[in-house]
Amino acid sequence: MAEAASVPSNNRPYADLPPISAALFEAKARKGLTFDEIAKAIGKDEIWLAAAFYGQAKFSSEELVKLAEVLDIPTASVQNELGAHWWPNRGGLGPMPPTDPVIYRLYESVLVYGHAIKAVIHEKFGDGIMSMIDCKVNVTKKPDPKGDRVVLTFDGKFLPYAKW
Amino acid sequence: MAEAASVPSNNRPYADLPPISAALFEAKARKGLTFDEIAKAIGKDEIWLAAAFYGQAKFSSEELVKLAEVLDIPTASVQNELGAHWWPNRGGLGPMPPTDPVIYRLYESVLVYGHAIKAVIHEKFGDGIMSMIDCKVNVTKKPDPKGDRVVLTFDGKFLPYAKW
Amino acid sequence: MAEAASVPSNNRPYADLPPISAALFEAKARKGLTFDEIAKAIGKDEIWLAAAFYGQAKFSSEELVKLAEVLDIPTASVQNELGAHWWPNRGGLGPMPPTDPVIYRLYESVLVYGHAIKAVIHEKFGDGIMSMIDCKVNVTKKPDPKGDRVVLTFDGKFLPYAKW
Amino acid sequence: MAEAASVPSNNRPYADLPPISAALFEAKARKGLTFDEIAKAIGKDEIWLAAAFYGQAKFSSEELVKLAEVLDIPTASVQNELGAHWWPNRGGLGPMPPTDPVIYRLYESVLVYGHAIKAVIHEKFGDGIMSMIDCKVNVTKKPDPKGDRVVLTFDGKFLPYAKW
Amino acid sequence: MAEAASVPSNNRPYADLPPISAALFEAKARKGLTFDEIAKAIGKDEIWLAAAFYGQAKFSSEELVKLAEVLDIPTASVQNELGAHWWPNRGGLGPMPPTDPVIYRLYESVLVYGHAIKAVIHEKFGDGIMSMIDCKVNVTKKPDPKGDRVVLTFDGKFLPYAKW
Amino acid sequence: MAEAASVPSNNRPYADLPPISAALFEAKARKGLTFDEIAKAIGKDEIWLAAAFYGQAKFSSEELVKLAEVLDIPTASVQNELGAHWWPNRGGLGPMPPTDPVIYRLYESVLVYGHAIKAVIHEKFGDGIMSMIDCKVNVTKKPDPKGDRVVLTFDGKFLPYAKW
Amino acid sequence: MAEAASVPSNNRPYADLPPISAALFEAKARKGLTFDEIAKAIGKDEIWLAAAFYGQAKFSSEELVKLAEVLDIPTASVQNELGAHWWPNRGGLGPMPPTDPVIYRLYESVLVYGHAIKAVIHEKFGDGIMSMIDCKVNVTKKPDPKGDRVVLTFDGKFLPYAKW
Amino acid sequence: MAEAASVPSNNRPYADLPPISAALFEAKARKGLTFDEIAKAIGKDEIWLAAAFYGQAKFSSEELVKLAEVLDIPTASVQNELGAHWWPNRGGLGPMPPTDPVIYRLYESVLVYGHAIKAVIHEKFGDGIMSMIDCKVNVTKKPDPKGDRVVLTFDGKFLPYAKW
Amino acid sequence: MAEAASVPSNNRPYADLPPISAALFEAKARKGLTFDEIAKAIGKDEIWLAAAFYGQAKFSSEELVKLAEVLDIPTASVQNELGAHWWPNRGGLGPMPPTDPVIYRLYESVLVYGHAIKAVIHEKFGDGIMSMIDCKVNVTKKPDPKGDRVVLTFDGKFLPYAKW
Amino acid sequence: MAEAASVPSNNRPYADLPPISAALFEAKARKGLTFDEIAKAIGKDEIWLAAAFYGQAKFSSEELVKLAEVLDIPTASVQNELGAHWWPNRGGLGPMPPTDPVIYRLYESVLVYGHAIKAVIHEKFGDGIMSMIDCKVNVTKKPDPKGDRVVLTFDGKFLPYAKW
Repeated sequence: MAEAASVPSNNRPYADLPPISAALFEAKARKGLTFDEIAKAIGKDEIWLAAAFYGQAKFSSEELVKLAEVLDIPTASVQNELGAHWWPNRGGLGPMPPTDPVIYRLYESVLVYGHAIKAVIHEKFGDGIMSMIDCKVNVTKKPDPKGDRVVLTFDGKFLPYAKW
Repeated sequence: MAEAASVPSNNRPYADLPPISAALFEAKARKGLTFDEIAKAIGKDEIWLAAAFYGQAKFSSEELVKLAEVLDIPTASVQNELGAHWWPNRGGLGPMPPTDPVIYRLYESVLVYGHAIKAVIHEKFGDGIMSMIDCKVNVTKKPDPKGDRVVLTFDGKFLPYAKW
Repeated sequence: MAEAASVPSNNRPYADLPPISAALFEAKARKGLTFDEIAKAIGKDEIWLAAAFYGQAKFSSEELVKLAEVLDIPTASVQNELGAHWWPNRGGLGPMPPTDPVIYRLYESVLVYGHAIKAVIHEKFGDGIMSMIDCKVNVTKKPDPKGDRVVLTFDGKFLPYAKW
Repeated sequence: MAEAASVPSNNRPYADLPPISAALFEAKARKGLTFDEIAKAIGKDEIWLAAAFYGQAKFSSEELVKLAEVLDIPTASVQNELGAHWWPNRGGLGPMPPTDPVIYRLYESVLVYGHAIKAVIHEKFGDGIMSMIDCKVNVTKKPDPKGDRVVLTFDGKFLPYAKW
Repeated sequence: MAEAASVPSNNRPYADLPPISAALFEAKARKGLTFDEIAKAIGKDEIWLAAAFYGQAKFSSEELVKLAEVLDIPTASVQNELGAHWWPNRGGLGPMPPTDPVIYRLYESVLVYGHAIKAVIHEKFGDGIMSMIDCKVNVTKKPDPKGDRVVLTFDGKFLPYAKW
Repeated sequence: MAEAASVPSNNRPYADLPPISAALFEAKARKGLTFDEIAKAIGKDEIWLAAAFYGQAKFSSEELVKLAEVLDIPTASVQNELGAHWWPNRGGLGPMPPTDPVIYRLYESVLVYGHAIKAVIHEKFGDGIMSMIDCKVNVTKKPDPKGDRVVLTFDGKFLPYAKW
Repeated sequence: MAEAASVPSNNRPYADLPPISAALFEAKARKGLTFDEIAKAIGKDEIWLAAAFYGQAKFSSEELVKLAEVLDIPTASVQNELGAHWWPNRGGLGPMPPTDPVIYRLYESVLVYGHAIKAVIHEKFGDGIMSMIDCKVNVTKKPDPKGDRVVLTFDGKFLPYAKW
Repeated sequence: MAEAASVPSNNRPYADLPPISAALFEAKARKGLTFDEIAKAIGKDEIWLAAAFYGQAKFSSEELVKLAEVLDIPTASVQNELGAHWWPNRGGLGPMPPTDPVIYRLYESVLVYGHAIKAVIHEKFGDGIMSMIDCKVNVTKKPDPKGDRVVLTFDGKFLPYAKW
Repeated sequence: MAEAASVPSNNRPYADLPPISAALFEAKARKGLTFDEIAKAIGKDEIWLAAAFYGQAKFSSEELVKLAEVLDIPTASVQNELGAHWWPNRGGLGPMPPTDPVIYRLYESVLVYGHAIKAVIHEKFGDGIMSMIDCKVNVTKKPDPKGDRVVLTFDGKFLPYAKW
Repeated sequence: MAEAASVPSNNRPYADLPPISAALFEAKARKGLTFDEIAKAIGKDEIWLAAAFYGQAKFSSEELVKLAEVLDIPTASVQNELGAHWWPNRGGLGPMPPTDPVIYRLYESVLVYGHAIKAVIHEKFGDGIMSMIDCKVNVTKKPDPKGDRVVLTFDGKFLPYAKW
């Protein structure tokens, strides 16, 4: 647990987030908590929680109360900034194409496998899409003697195209 | 099984692929085969096979022979166009941001969940990336009474950043 | 009814569509039919039909048969090009921002009213989106002595954001 | 009704709006009013009102007086910032293509249905456009057992192209 | 009058126009006619006529007949390509920003004088725009001993912004 | 005449202008003067004056003195910021393509009529351009029972291309 | 003198030029002539002549006759393609930023020295520009024992900004 | 000599330069010195000096001492900001394509004459480039009764391409 | 060793880095240390160290302690800003294409030699890539009487493409 | 050695190269030669040779003769297309940012290590650049039990910035 921790709030992506976001990240670092630990405390998954830290999801009022508690920050300030009146302005956290290699590799998956994924979805489901709204995202660590592996899963509802 | 089938070879993405690619797609349609059926015939996964159809992966010489056989097209023509001398020029099949809604949703996953995925990878693995080279991609259909779901999985090796 | 009609198939958007698309447009012109008349003949709405002409929707096999009939073109050729093996590669028909004033005005509606629409959707429905997949689009003419009006309606399912 | 509420005024879109805009949004949140309630109080529609909050429309002097009253903020400050000398600098509130999924879906409607809408407008009205200046925009909620629907309507004057 | 004349139909802007457009330009050159002479023959202004040559305006059926006559080309071919079924797909003839110095100077007028023009329009007319649909464009030559001057005039209807 | 007036100096275009520019706009609002009234006071045209307010033209020393006088602001401050050492850094006040509908319509005139204007200039003047440096710009109001019209005129010197 | 010579007419920049341009370049290669030799034969400078070969300048009728003669190609074909009816569509020959290192260095001169050149022009001439229309461009070789030097000169008329 | 002078240090290009740069420009204005006068005082050419003011060149330690002296500003502050540890981050001072007409004309020279210059360099020197690193840039005023001319010269070393 | 040194922390790339980065660069300048000297003090290579200064690599806790020591800055402040909770957000330090000539030349190596490097890697290693994650970068000075040479080496692991 | 081999000459990068380039690649495949073997036959390095195949370097007349010989293709056709009159139009072979993962990793090296490389070059050499013109590029295979490594070396002349 760090005694003090700051994030570069004048840098991206923090500069593009509500000021309270920097406070959330700093409290997380000071408390020495993982996303998973915080997520469990408020009854959510770690990826969803991390997305919410980055302003990409909306906490309910109850979740904000629990969040303030687990992070030891005033409830009022999270309610004031991320309360019922706040809505995520999703995306827009960094450049596209991404310059960070971790995020770029995700982008590259669209470049290289996008058409294949589309073709197989059509073949298996018909004309429609995998929803990115009704979609759960998950990252797990798969130990492997040749080098651990990241297993990233998207579980999204199939939406058939309307015809009218 | 269609008696005849053509793909718009002067349109994207076909226009950006070797001419043999259109022939592969047309043979697949004429034979009424799924990617999975062709993939099984040459001992590969359907997503890898579909990627190879879109010029995003390289068939071995043995795979080309089996491919020609299962699709009933002359071996010589696939060897001539996609043989040992041919190397994938990956990516570049369509615009970025994608305009097709299926592919755009994948792109949107990077916009919305990219930072969360990166943060959790760092927390679980340290400073490094999920490889998109040593990575297997999979699409499965998960039946659900509220609407079937697409489960899309990336299983990629974690690569720690070199320090020297 | 024109005796002959051609569309500039080497120009956008025709050049970005399957070759059969030009044939559909030319047959429509030769037959002197409106989108509405063709749509009625195959049991669809005119906007959906027009979208399908522009390669933005997928005809079923039955619809292709009726289409060929109403347009007096060989069924085989539409089946060959737009049959079960063909999937729309949506979007990508023209530049964005659009240069054509009709389409630009739609784009401008996003620029000027996008945030207001988003804010009111959130207020009325909560955190989620209006689906553009399960969405019906409609254009009607509203006579007005000061100048007729175009009434353009999108009727799309609200999709709440998944939380997990 | 929140006791306090803030919006991230150093973030987009607030950072691109006159400083008074953040005050309007915060007062709305503190008063617990909907766009519709505020709109009714000044005799306007909710979408127009929301657009004006986002700097996309111009309040008349009388509307500013009523707005200050319903929101309990000093008339002088709204007059000082949004008075007769202020003109909307429309558009430019966020990136294009939009990264927020709500707004992106509107953008996608242009990608997918733009040409169809243009073609049907031409067929029904002739050579011209749907005005986005003399246009009213409306969002309503249509209850549906399979999931409520958003009905978004644009009612714009048809403008025939000048010939001279 | 040239005996033969060709335009580079595989180059922009001709490559982005219906094939008949190249024929119109070549006939004009062969006949040695100015835009003004052709325009007069069909009862239009030279700028409108030139715009129509560049696919930016729609000839009526009567105008096509007269056009074919004055240019000595078959009526059928202009009717076939530019008849009732053809609608202008405006804009998109060249890169933006323009690279050609003549067109770039027009673009530069927007860069340098755009805000001033907007401010004066607001001051003189209120909140609204100058229509580019109900607008007539004119180019005249003003002799001047220090060098002749180009007088370019846009005469467009003022459209006040709708409030609702 | 407003008692107080402010412009959003942290917003575009003000944020891209010298700080004194905001003071000029605010003084103009407080004094209740039009561009035309200020222009007359310093012996210039209103469009030129408005352009200078937007940092697109250079006041002479005498003009700065008169400007300070008519706006009731200290001469020293305009001389300090816009004096002999200041040179316009023209353009760059907003995005291109413009998002504001007023300015976009000017941009659209280049898209739609640019080639026609170029072609007629060549036909009337030969190979060269209309100067946007030695060019006077003018906006007038033309009353019309069907709706007043904006008449926008560019009067620019023709410059023949050098040959050497 | 080569017996045969071809240029890749399906590649840039040839693909963006009138077909006759490839013929000019090929004739030049076959005849073994330099730009300077051809230029002298038609009474022009080599840079102007090279620009004309690249479609960036307009030959007079007399110059076309001499050009055909010196290159031993039919006068009719140059008249047919580049005659009185042809006007340069300048710029647009390659990507910007340029990818070719020779042209990129010119572009880099604008990046690095553009503001300095502007500042010195203002200091020496006042508010205005160096014309790129009334401008002569010259390249000479300056022998230097440490490596020969390229001397590139632009001699352009100063144009003072209009005030009105 | 102005008693006070400021430059808009929150505007481009000043905002993209070290803070000391604004101080240099303001001191130059207060002292009433030209670039040439300052350049002579430190033994350099005026274009090089102006480039250095714009952060595009590196002063030696001795030059900084002389510069502080001629501009009457503390040596310590220029050493502190532009001393041995400071290296130019060249380019990036403004948008590309440039919006300012003076700088745009330079950019236009690349568009219009870039290929001609490249072709003549190749013809006179072989396969290689004109260095923009070992290059001297010069602006002189050439009086002309029809209007003074700007003569802009680049004198750069020819660098042949390595072959290995 | 400078007594004082500052870097333009409101300029790129410093403005895009954590605030502590400016402090690191300033301490390095004050202490008069090279990257190599600092790198040796913490047991790393100079290029890796320089990359870490630019926020492109992650210091371990031990390295931060040594870094603070060698630079004479408080350990707490580097731990607070660059400690365990901080992860590099790589890339994004400047525009692409780069405008700085040093960095542009690296970019140009990709433009000119990228395909050749890819082709030779494929020929020597098969279908795969050179890792930029498991890669060491080195810059050395090779004295040469005709001018010293920069030898830049990338030593990266070959990663074969997964097939599955 | 393949009996027949073709490359997709209508795809990038072949479509952007002279037609002879496809013939060179096909002959290389038919003869079963590596770049290294061909390079040795004409006395050059394999990377240079590969670059020349991709149109990024210029063969001398003698090299063309040897090339034709080793590839068993007519000397006349390479002389006709790539002879003395042909000059490389470097760069422009594919999109930037690159979409192919091999080439993207090179691009990523600029993103991640560009500033570090620049800083160390300045520290070791002073103000200047590493030439990409007088630069030799080399790829070697370094066997490694944990996976072979690609060693990519750039050996470029340091060019100090001119001061004048």
